[in-house]
Amino acid sequence: MGRITQNLQVPRVVSTESEIFVNTRPDTVAVEEPLEIRVNGTALTTTMRTPGHDIELVHGLLLAEGLITDASELSTARYCAGAVGPDNQNTYNVLELDVFPKEPLRELNLVSVQRNLLTTSACGVCGTTSIEQLMHKKGWPITPITPDPRVIVSLPDKLKAQQKLFDKTGGVHAAGLATLDGEMLLVREDVGRHNAADKVIGNMLMAGKLPLENTILVMSSRASFELVQKAAMAGISGVIAVGAATSLAIEAAQDSGIFLAGFVRGNKFNHYAGELG
Amino acid sequence: MGRITQNLQVPRVVSTESEIFVNTRPDTVAVEEPLEIRVNGTALTTTMRTPGHDIELVHGLLLAEGLITDASELSTARYCAGAVGPDNQNTYNVLELDVFPKEPLRELNLVSVQRNLLTTSACGVCGTTSIEQLMHKKGWPITPITPDPRVIVSLPDKLKAQQKLFDKTGGVHAAGLATLDGEMLLVREDVGRHNAADKVIGNMLMAGKLPLENTILVMSSRASFELVQKAAMAGISGVIAVGAATSLAIEAAQDSGIFLAGFVRGNKFNHYAGELG
Repeated sequence: MGRITQNLQVPRVVSTESEIFVNTRPDTVAVEEPLEIRVNGTALTTTMRTPGHDIELVHGLLLAEGLITDASELSTARYCAGAVGPDNQNTYNVLELDVFPKEPLRELNLVSVQRNLLTTSACGVCGTTSIEQLMHKKGWPITPITPDPRVIVSLPDKLKAQQKLFDKTGGVHAAGLATLDGEMLLVREDVGRHNAADKVIGNMLMAGKLPLENTILVMSSRASFELVQKAAMAGISGVIAVGAATSLAIEAAQDSGIFLAGFVRGNKFNHYAGELG
Repeated sequence: MGRITQNLQVPRVVSTESEIFVNTRPDTVAVEEPLEIRVNGTALTTTMRTPGHDIELVHGLLLAEGLITDASELSTARYCAGAVGPDNQNTYNVLELDVFPKEPLRELNLVSVQRNLLTTSACGVCGTTSIEQLMHKKGWPITPITPDPRVIVSLPDKLKAQQKLFDKTGGVHAAGLATLDGEMLLVREDVGRHNAADKVIGNMLMAGKLPLENTILVMSSRASFELVQKAAMAGISGVIAVGAATSLAIEAAQDSGIFLAGFVRGNKFNHYAGELG
């Protein structure tokens, strides 16, 4: 497995009008490496991720893209034996997956997924902003929740308490899955917020716990359309974010019945979709 | 042209142990909409972006992906006439581009770009982390710079002064292009940091100003591999970021001769690659 942090000697510079001070000291940066994902022999995509929990990541990604609905459909996942670096060691940066749909007639439309992976969805023959078309993939039905505001404001601190990689590097996002009682079930970190969410959801998919009803996805980042869509595909009832929500994230949450709050900081938040308890 | 912000009535919630206060007031969120990009009749990708400066965006994206090297190669760009929303108005979310390489023998490898757009690059037949292979696209040669630390620490404030969309929404990233004297030439904002960078670079490409030697790309975000690679494709000499840099961003900057600083906050920064003046 690849490293998740890298230690460097980094000059820290302080600049004043008249003087420049430099203190070179050990620093830790978050590792970003490509993961090439192949499905049934076809290269699906390459994602830049922090190594670690790659199997969770691909489960979450394939679920979000509608390629699998159940962990059993991803029958094998192995690192490509020929993917070696200059030191002749396996890079662990190529994963070969075998996917067999449970319903044999369901088509694995890899080309469509490839073309649209950048943003998670197709936009019809000549494009549209219709949220129905953007949310075209069929996820789990959403069980509406009415979360307690006191639970909501408690969650970012609980996420932060488990952001070990962020503590070291200051450079990664985190996703967590919490219960309505405010228990943090799982936290994953990654240089990409979407990867962190995929890892959390992938973990739960592998444990057979979908749909993730009565849970809240807690993001250290902003909330984009993509994250709300990932939640929808996993049946997650709510999404809360430390940062802002985009227009389309709000629309998607309202449309799919997902609770959405943003700018959850201190004891305050913006309430964008769903009902409060 | 689509809207870049959306005004909503948003309940702002304050949660205390014993009481919940709600104040519903007008709020502004950043618009996120899909932009489907078609090249010579083939759907290349869909990116989630903040509408505005779309023509700059596609110029920057096509340059970063190695599909064009000069603005003249993108001969026409038009919004698809049939892309209408429920109100029968053009959504301005589908751009049709005609691309003709100046050198007729240069192949437009759309399939390769499609497959790798998620992360900007291919990783060889069986994957590798070799920075040479990741940086396989041929950009402009980099003119090394030795920037003045006082200029570096001045740039985030100059960027912030022009982040009008962030002031309204708190939810978008910005990219700016600055001279070594600290003059901010251009600032663009977008829900995606990569889009903001593409818009800045695309603007300069359209103005015939590449290679962007002796300039610095200033990012409100973290610095990922992707951003360093975009800078490399445009011949930009330096990248500085308010946030952290990833391991691969540092490696790419060191390898390509690009100056890189991160955590540029107040009068301090981390110096990752290149030489200081």
